[in-house]
Amino acid sequence: MRAAVMYGAGDVRVVDVPDATLVEPTDAIVRVTRACICGSDLWRYRDMAPDAAGQSMGHEAIGVVEAVGREVSRIRVGDTVIMPFAYSDGRCHFCHEGLQTACVHGGFFGWGGFNGAQAEALRIPFADGTLYPFNGTTDSSQWASLLSLSDVMGTGHHAARAARVGAGRSVAVIGDGAVGLCGVIAAKRLGAEQIILLGRHPDRVALGREFGASDIVGERGEEGIEKIMSLTEGQGVHSVLECVGSDTSMASAVAIARPGGAIGRVGVPHYEGIPAGPTFYKNLVVAGGPAPVRAYIDELLPDVLEGRIQPGRVFDRTIGLEETPDGYRAMEAREAIKVMIRAAAS
Amino acid sequence: MRAAVMYGAGDVRVVDVPDATLVEPTDAIVRVTRACICGSDLWRYRDMAPDAAGQSMGHEAIGVVEAVGREVSRIRVGDTVIMPFAYSDGRCHFCHEGLQTACVHGGFFGWGGFNGAQAEALRIPFADGTLYPFNGTTDSSQWASLLSLSDVMGTGHHAARAARVGAGRSVAVIGDGAVGLCGVIAAKRLGAEQIILLGRHPDRVALGREFGASDIVGERGEEGIEKIMSLTEGQGVHSVLECVGSDTSMASAVAIARPGGAIGRVGVPHYEGIPAGPTFYKNLVVAGGPAPVRAYIDELLPDVLEGRIQPGRVFDRTIGLEETPDGYRAMEAREAIKVMIRAAAS
Repeated sequence: MRAAVMYGAGDVRVVDVPDATLVEPTDAIVRVTRACICGSDLWRYRDMAPDAAGQSMGHEAIGVVEAVGREVSRIRVGDTVIMPFAYSDGRCHFCHEGLQTACVHGGFFGWGGFNGAQAEALRIPFADGTLYPFNGTTDSSQWASLLSLSDVMGTGHHAARAARVGAGRSVAVIGDGAVGLCGVIAAKRLGAEQIILLGRHPDRVALGREFGASDIVGERGEEGIEKIMSLTEGQGVHSVLECVGSDTSMASAVAIARPGGAIGRVGVPHYEGIPAGPTFYKNLVVAGGPAPVRAYIDELLPDVLEGRIQPGRVFDRTIGLEETPDGYRAMEAREAIKVMIRAAAS
Repeated sequence: MRAAVMYGAGDVRVVDVPDATLVEPTDAIVRVTRACICGSDLWRYRDMAPDAAGQSMGHEAIGVVEAVGREVSRIRVGDTVIMPFAYSDGRCHFCHEGLQTACVHGGFFGWGGFNGAQAEALRIPFADGTLYPFNGTTDSSQWASLLSLSDVMGTGHHAARAARVGAGRSVAVIGDGAVGLCGVIAAKRLGAEQIILLGRHPDRVALGREFGASDIVGERGEEGIEKIMSLTEGQGVHSVLECVGSDTSMASAVAIARPGGAIGRVGVPHYEGIPAGPTFYKNLVVAGGPAPVRAYIDELLPDVLEGRIQPGRVFDRTIGLEETPDGYRAMEAREAIKVMIRAAAS
C-alpha cells in the first residue's frame, strides 16, 4: 500500500510500504477515507534529523473498518469510524476518567515508526478503546468536520476547557492555525463574551471572525500585549488558549492573562520552562496537554451533525495521497491553513 | 514604639521606630496582640543584602483597632481584628472576586520598607477592605489559631484548593513547615482519602499525623519519588501541595503528580521555570500563588472557633517582641516550627 513517510526535515515521500495487517487480537485495520496534515507535523518537517528508515506520518483520520482481531467486540467490519490521534485501551483508570492520552497502554499514531494515517490504511491498536464508531447518515460535506474531531476541534476544545472558558469570560486565542481557529469555535460554544484572536494572516483571521472572534490583534510582542490590555480595561483576559508552543507565545500568554485567570496549553511546548514567578504572583492556572479528543467526541459530535459548528472549514485545501509532499510544503509556506488528504478513492 | 527590623542576612534587631500613625483617611492603626515569624521571612534572613535603613518585618497579626481615619466606616476603634498578610481596598474587581492578593491598590505588609507586624502597632491601609473584624467571645487559647488565619492556614487551604483536593483524592504535601502542616489540615478538611506528608523532622511529621497525614515519606529525591509511587499503585497523586518553593521541590511535585492531576503552589518560587514538557505530557494543572487569605476567613473561622481544626498548634514557641531575633534564629535552625510573638502585654 501507499503511505507518506518523512525521512528528514523537508523530505516527505509517498512510498510503497507493507500492507497494514492485524498483529494483536485487539487490533483493527482501518481503510482511510480522509486524513490530514497537522501543525505538529510541521515541527518535524522543520527539524527532523535524517533517518533512512523514515517515519510514517499522520495521526488524524476517518475511515472504514476493514478487519478486526478476534478480541474486538464493539467495533465491527464496515463501521465508519473517527480515529483519535492517540490510541488507548479503553479499560484503564485514565481511559475511564476520560484522559485517554494518558492510557497506561496507549500511544500516539505517527510516532516511533508506528504506522501513520497519511496512508491508504493503518493498524489500530486496542480498536474497541481507540475508535469512535460513527454510523449515522452523513454526506461527504460533513467529512471534514468529522475528521476535525480526530484532533484539531477536540484540541481547541481542550484548550478552552483547560483555560476555564465559560459564560461571560474574556478569552484570547494565541495562534491562528487550525487549532487556534477551533479554539475560537470552542470558546464561542462555551459562552465566552469577548474572544480576541491573535493572528495576522488575512484569510485565517477572516475565518476566525466568522467562527466568533470579536477582536483581532495582529501586532506581536509588546505591541500586541498593549493592544490586548487596552481591549480589556488594562486587566488582561480571563482565559488564554495557547495554541502555538513557542517560548514567545507562552511568554505572551502569561503577560496577557488576568490575575486569577487560566492558560490552556495545547501547543506542543518547544520551550523549557513556564515562567515561574509571573504565573505565581498572578495566581494563574496553567493547564492543558495532549487533548483527550476521544472523550470529547460525545459532546462535540451532535453540534457537528446539526451544523451548529463547522470546524471542517479549517481545511482549505484537499489533495490526493500522492500529493502529500506538496501538502506539507503548502502548509509550511502558510499557503494553506490545513490540508485534507483524500486517501481512498471515495 | 518598638519594632523588629532586618538590616541584612541574619541581622534582625528590635529597635525604636516612630509610632504608627494615620496617614490616609482610609487607614487604621492596630495594636498588635500576637504576631509571628513566617517561613517566607527566612528567605530574606538567609540572603538579604545589607541595608542600613532596614526592612520592618512581619505580615501576620491579630490585634485591636486603636484609631481609624475619617473614611473608615466598617472597622471601629476597639474591634478585635485578623490582619491578612496583604492589604486590599475591598472595592476593586479582584477584591469582589475574592482574589484580594491581586487588588489594584493592594500590597503586602513587611515589604518595601512598609511597617511590619513584628511590632507594637502598625498602620493598616484600606482598613475596611483589609481587616477582618472578629468580635466573638474567644479565650486566649484560640489566639494562635486565629493568628494562623492571617497567613499559614489560609495559605495551606489555598494550596489545597489550587491542587483541587476533594473527596476521595490522593494528596501529597511537600514541606513539613507550618504551611505544609496547615496544608495537611486543609486536605483532610476537604475530604482527601490519602494524605502523604513529605518530611523528616520527627516533631513536624508527628504533628502532621495528628492533623490527618496517612503516610509519611522521609526519603528525598529519586528515593522519595519511588516511595510515593509505591504508595499510589505507580500512578502518583491527584493533588500535590507545593509548600517549599525550591527547584527540587517543584521538580518532585511534577514527578509525583498523577496524569491529569494538579499542583497547588504556595511556596514563593525560588526557581525560574516550571518544567514545561512533563507538565504538558501529563496534562497537569499548575495553579496557586499568594493566597487570598482574606477571602478564606469566612469559610475557615467557624471550624477554628468550634475546634474542628487547630492550626494554631503549628506555633510551638512563644516569645516576647524583644526576643524576636532569637525567634528567627530558632526557626532558621529548625528548633521551632513557627514562632509566635507576644507583641502586647496581654
